[in-house]
Amino acid sequence: MSTTLELLLVGFGHVAQRFVTLLDEKREALALEHGLATSVVGVVTRGHGRMWAVDGLDAASIRERLASGKNAAPPGFAGSTTDFIRAAAAGTSATGEARLIVVETTTLNIDNGQPAIDHIRTGLSSGAHVVTANKGPVAFAYDTLDDSACRAERRFLFEGAVMDGVPVFNLVRETLPAIEVVGFRGVLNSTTNYILTAMEGGQSFESALSEMQAAGIAEADPTLDVEGWDAAAKTAALANVLLQAALTPHSVEREGITPALGPRAREARRAGRRLKLVATAGRDGGQVAAHVALEELTEDDVLAGLEGQQNGIVLFTDVLGEIAVIQRGAGLTQTAYALLSDVIAVGRTLIDRSDRQERPRARRDRTPR
Amino acid sequence: MSTTLELLLVGFGHVAQRFVTLLDEKREALALEHGLATSVVGVVTRGHGRMWAVDGLDAASIRERLASGKNAAPPGFAGSTTDFIRAAAAGTSATGEARLIVVETTTLNIDNGQPAIDHIRTGLSSGAHVVTANKGPVAFAYDTLDDSACRAERRFLFEGAVMDGVPVFNLVRETLPAIEVVGFRGVLNSTTNYILTAMEGGQSFESALSEMQAAGIAEADPTLDVEGWDAAAKTAALANVLLQAALTPHSVEREGITPALGPRAREARRAGRRLKLVATAGRDGGQVAAHVALEELTEDDVLAGLEGQQNGIVLFTDVLGEIAVIQRGAGLTQTAYALLSDVIAVGRTLIDRSDRQERPRARRDRTPR
Repeated sequence: MSTTLELLLVGFGHVAQRFVTLLDEKREALALEHGLATSVVGVVTRGHGRMWAVDGLDAASIRERLASGKNAAPPGFAGSTTDFIRAAAAGTSATGEARLIVVETTTLNIDNGQPAIDHIRTGLSSGAHVVTANKGPVAFAYDTLDDSACRAERRFLFEGAVMDGVPVFNLVRETLPAIEVVGFRGVLNSTTNYILTAMEGGQSFESALSEMQAAGIAEADPTLDVEGWDAAAKTAALANVLLQAALTPHSVEREGITPALGPRAREARRAGRRLKLVATAGRDGGQVAAHVALEELTEDDVLAGLEGQQNGIVLFTDVLGEIAVIQRGAGLTQTAYALLSDVIAVGRTLIDRSDRQERPRARRDRTPR
Repeated sequence: MSTTLELLLVGFGHVAQRFVTLLDEKREALALEHGLATSVVGVVTRGHGRMWAVDGLDAASIRERLASGKNAAPPGFAGSTTDFIRAAAAGTSATGEARLIVVETTTLNIDNGQPAIDHIRTGLSSGAHVVTANKGPVAFAYDTLDDSACRAERRFLFEGAVMDGVPVFNLVRETLPAIEVVGFRGVLNSTTNYILTAMEGGQSFESALSEMQAAGIAEADPTLDVEGWDAAAKTAALANVLLQAALTPHSVEREGITPALGPRAREARRAGRRLKLVATAGRDGGQVAAHVALEELTEDDVLAGLEGQQNGIVLFTDVLGEIAVIQRGAGLTQTAYALLSDVIAVGRTLIDRSDRQERPRARRDRTPR
């Protein structure tokens, strides 16, 4: 007997598309290990239409409907994305049973985090849980969204906002209970780390950036990466959640990278150091201070070893000392998995509430002793 | 309103002693963040007596009673440690309410994992949850202990078996749902890594080992560390849990370190490599192959950067690629925290069963925006 989670996708770019195929690939693991099934009941995009089907949509039918331009909406839909979310939540029995999840994957708006914040707030107030891979809402409005989730008795999860699917937020929440995180340092932006690594070896800024754009890691307009805004947004998100700060990306001191850094990167490397764009945050009296800055790291620094697209974070804790988590593979699949892990976390909460012991247990065949 | 977990300590060495003081230090965090309280109701040791007090024991009263040699046991106690566990479980109403936890901290027996395995089995069959920092039971008998826990509808947790309190087992279980771990590599023994690092710099094996003994990291008889047994036991434990293997420390190919490695360690370092004792495991057809061996790592290997007592593990996964977790501080407090995190995990299960939403929420003051 499995619990079916109904999913409403807000945004349907590369990450959401990969998320839908990953749902298929992990169908059996969800059923066997977690007693969960999923059904995509709606998709709403800004420019590519919308669809709604209570009996569920698969990857092929979503693509087909988007391509053919046939729209469908839940009863009561009046035109906007937030209307769609409200009408969809009203249109399914999953809402009252806390089985509806809004999967938010719109892109970062560095001015104010909108419209993602409204999407999330509407989802929660309509009775849906919300998971997102967009760092904007957590960077600009974690406090109020967390309150909204609490009042609505729904979950708001965002593992994909930082380091893709490698657990940071869920790591602290689920596996470091009663620990106080007092600060962190991290290399959080793949594009700038790739460019800095490439420049150490004599490659030009422009050609390294082109490679990242071709790989779909950097945006066509790479300003957010190169000027440090992406790292600043991630820093604000981490500080808001882990250090109970109330920062925005604009209150994080910020530095970016430029083509002129090539010689400095090469010289540092020759001297046994690595030039890195490092995000740092910590409590400073009652306040939280945070900045993104170029640093020349010595080789014994765990962040110095991050090559190319790798990301990493060092958490400073009261009881465990320093813990580092390193992401050595990055890409769409990893970000899509972040959403999946959050969806499963929501599903586990539901099953915990009914009876954790009845959860089916997976057992693989074991190696003979 | 908080749930009180009753704790029965089996073994009362340095780790258990630090665990009891850590319970005091984290009392407020347990109550505010998790709605939990703890009460140590019994202590049983091999050579230093035993005590039992239904109204709870604090650190000072435990030390005082052990020093004065005054023993006390629950009704029905007939002499052995397993008797004590059974009688204690029968003597408290916490058992039926799943609020009794056996905290097992006896030391590694590399022959067969006993008597810790019997302690754990007895605890589970008597209605207690069990948490342990001893790697032996998981290395020798994970499969049957996991089955016992499942049948008893109790939890068996062992985060402290590897990398102290830095989450590895709980990381995979709680934050990487639906992920398949297909292998791992790690530097898992602090003493040998400390000695290898010291020998790179020209220090002698013997003096580095003495430092580790003085710090309480290496045992008075350091054979288990130096000959690679500790690393082999950790490798078996990890393989049994993460790769569904059924290894024992004796089925892990094993290499240790000797004073004769000094010149090789220095030479490797001069050539830009690091000599490390590396644990490796992976699926090889239907089998799991595992070994502990000396390797010369190149500088771009994340394990190469582990200095002194640091430990680290790289998990190979199907969807996320490689994830590395690095422990940069190691010691008694970290191991004691592993037990605490497992105790809290048990407590959360209980609260999940009643109603997660009623759990009190901690809120720290936030930084003004």
